[in-house]
Amino acid sequence: MIAEEFKQMLGQKSVIRQLAEYGSERAKEIGYENVFDYSLGNPSVPVPQAFTDHLVALATSKDPGAVHGYSPSLGITSVREKVAASLKKRFALDYTKEDIFMTSGAAGALAHALRAVTQEGDEVITFAPFFPEYTPYVTGAGAVLKVVPADTETFQINFEAFEQMFSPKVMAVLINTPNNPSGIVYSSQTIQRLAAFLEQKQKEYGHEIYIISDEPYREIVFEGVDAPCVASHYPNTLTCYSFSKSLSLPGERIGYVAVNPQCKDAALIVDMCGQISRGIGHNCPPSIIQLAVAEVLDQTSDLSVYETNMNILYDEMTRLGFSIVKPGGTFYMFPKALAEDATAFCKHALKYDLILVPAESFGCPGYFRMAYCIPTEKVERSLEAFRKLAADYK
Amino acid sequence: MIAEEFKQMLGQKSVIRQLAEYGSERAKEIGYENVFDYSLGNPSVPVPQAFTDHLVALATSKDPGAVHGYSPSLGITSVREKVAASLKKRFALDYTKEDIFMTSGAAGALAHALRAVTQEGDEVITFAPFFPEYTPYVTGAGAVLKVVPADTETFQINFEAFEQMFSPKVMAVLINTPNNPSGIVYSSQTIQRLAAFLEQKQKEYGHEIYIISDEPYREIVFEGVDAPCVASHYPNTLTCYSFSKSLSLPGERIGYVAVNPQCKDAALIVDMCGQISRGIGHNCPPSIIQLAVAEVLDQTSDLSVYETNMNILYDEMTRLGFSIVKPGGTFYMFPKALAEDATAFCKHALKYDLILVPAESFGCPGYFRMAYCIPTEKVERSLEAFRKLAADYK
Repeated sequence: MIAEEFKQMLGQKSVIRQLAEYGSERAKEIGYENVFDYSLGNPSVPVPQAFTDHLVALATSKDPGAVHGYSPSLGITSVREKVAASLKKRFALDYTKEDIFMTSGAAGALAHALRAVTQEGDEVITFAPFFPEYTPYVTGAGAVLKVVPADTETFQINFEAFEQMFSPKVMAVLINTPNNPSGIVYSSQTIQRLAAFLEQKQKEYGHEIYIISDEPYREIVFEGVDAPCVASHYPNTLTCYSFSKSLSLPGERIGYVAVNPQCKDAALIVDMCGQISRGIGHNCPPSIIQLAVAEVLDQTSDLSVYETNMNILYDEMTRLGFSIVKPGGTFYMFPKALAEDATAFCKHALKYDLILVPAESFGCPGYFRMAYCIPTEKVERSLEAFRKLAADYK
Repeated sequence: MIAEEFKQMLGQKSVIRQLAEYGSERAKEIGYENVFDYSLGNPSVPVPQAFTDHLVALATSKDPGAVHGYSPSLGITSVREKVAASLKKRFALDYTKEDIFMTSGAAGALAHALRAVTQEGDEVITFAPFFPEYTPYVTGAGAVLKVVPADTETFQINFEAFEQMFSPKVMAVLINTPNNPSGIVYSSQTIQRLAAFLEQKQKEYGHEIYIISDEPYREIVFEGVDAPCVASHYPNTLTCYSFSKSLSLPGERIGYVAVNPQCKDAALIVDMCGQISRGIGHNCPPSIIQLAVAEVLDQTSDLSVYETNMNILYDEMTRLGFSIVKPGGTFYMFPKALAEDATAFCKHALKYDLILVPAESFGCPGYFRMAYCIPTEKVERSLEAFRKLAADYK
């Protein structure tokens, strides 16, 4: 008999994917240039040329067996060494290859990190608004996801609610900064307060509490924004990284778990990740992509377009009466809908071919998410549609 | 607190990996050419040039966003269509893209197939000798693995033992033909008998029983060997394929689940695989590798070296007194050790720098596995070492 739990999940397909599919269909009708699709977080800028050059050199190598051969299950040793060296230089933490586990993107990283530090039935806390896939990620690991309501004034952490929800069952706190969907970056003050609280709770409860820091947007931080390194503030941190956004490679599934070298049992946790892989069919990220990425660790795509787009949208939409906490990074923005029912509001926006994602599934009803990783000229042309939309709600 | 179950698995690391690591270390001491390493199944022949050409063309495409962008979670649509068309042409089964789910290698395929057709506590039956990773694969899916003892005369299915072990709790039968580690290909007679038995049990128990057919060695079948298509004989078949061996790409993690179009709920099972991915961090195999493989579906590396190697080894080792069931495919051979304790025997073989894998973990004590995916000249030079080894047991 087929597995009922997965059959039932089919009824709850991602609203983001559904809207993106609508956008593709609509583009066929009225032309791609006329659909203002703010649904999907697919980077709009090309991968750096240096990555492409390395990829071609590897593909045409005289030893294809070495390039395309099995990767060790923790990742290719030289790649782990280079990732550790790059992190050490950048964040002044003493990473070595023993702290690095290469993964198939951030999804793979989170799948391993969550399984490494929780047991069946343990609680994992996250903060609204949050990436909806956290629910299947945490549930799939056998843990229980608890969501702290948003502080809608700042989209920093709502500490009052968080502290009330905390209990000895919480083994990990899952944070995402810069944040999808709010675009907010947790400030040094926020991270310091979170770290101090968890240090105190570790002592009180007598067990480790881990921060799982999901950081695919680490490289997309806007000018003048305070963007602290989470691991620098809290030893028991597992950083989950993906090159999807920084190198515009979301389809190539490449990322890592970096366990803070000061974390209790850091190398053991990495070794355990290799065992976790066996049960979930992970094995290792693609060899040639590991090798190519390792050559461009300190580079990014030209990410400046995202800040340009954000400023255009923020200025005009604020002027139109939208309430928005100004993003500090990512390519997301999280305005309040002009009506109480954000789903109805986003549906109405389709009239002007504006594709916006209502935020119910992000744990923050009444808001919507915009992924502005689209060409700037299109952002500019979409402003007229926002004007018409706002006028309907005057 | 860290997850005890994975910590404990560290004590039971793969004996294959341990021996391969020993081989690498030994090569540093005495030179790579002097170590006869039969431990690892890493293909020794290069990927086809056509694959490389397509990979380079994709990497240097004018639209890198389309090449490196997110794949839909079931796989890139055009790739699924091409895989279906290729299978349809080859096996005369009416596959369409709705029956195909692209995966990160056979490990990813098995992780999804097992989760799709079993629920917590269901039984999955496999046949000794079997690939040791089946244990974590099945356990990780929440099911229980039952192993039917080997028929050591033929390494076909031991039907007597199988039928006795069968019960209504068995939801899937996991087979691997051509087989790792025996190199044996299940004959038409074996597959027909298996199919007939399962058809009868489906009726008797009133529920579906699936064959999960793990076929990474499908393209490596030796001359004159009867190698039936499993799905052609049994509608409820989920075929798990990997391009690792046929295209010499084990590190690039690319394969698929092909659900027999005659399988009950075929398209539903494929859709469910997309949901299963969410819980295990799979998402999709690398986009550029999907696109490149789709262009060479009907090609393989030059696999003829494996048959050459097999014949050299089979002839000489048989002459030396080894008892071997002659392989019909793969690049494995599974001789009986010359002493009762295969582990001690393989340890002794290290004296002659012969790296052989004892078969305890394959569920068949007293035997050992040889992966002869190494250059033929090295196979020939290893014969002297086998002569010395055999002499010690005269």
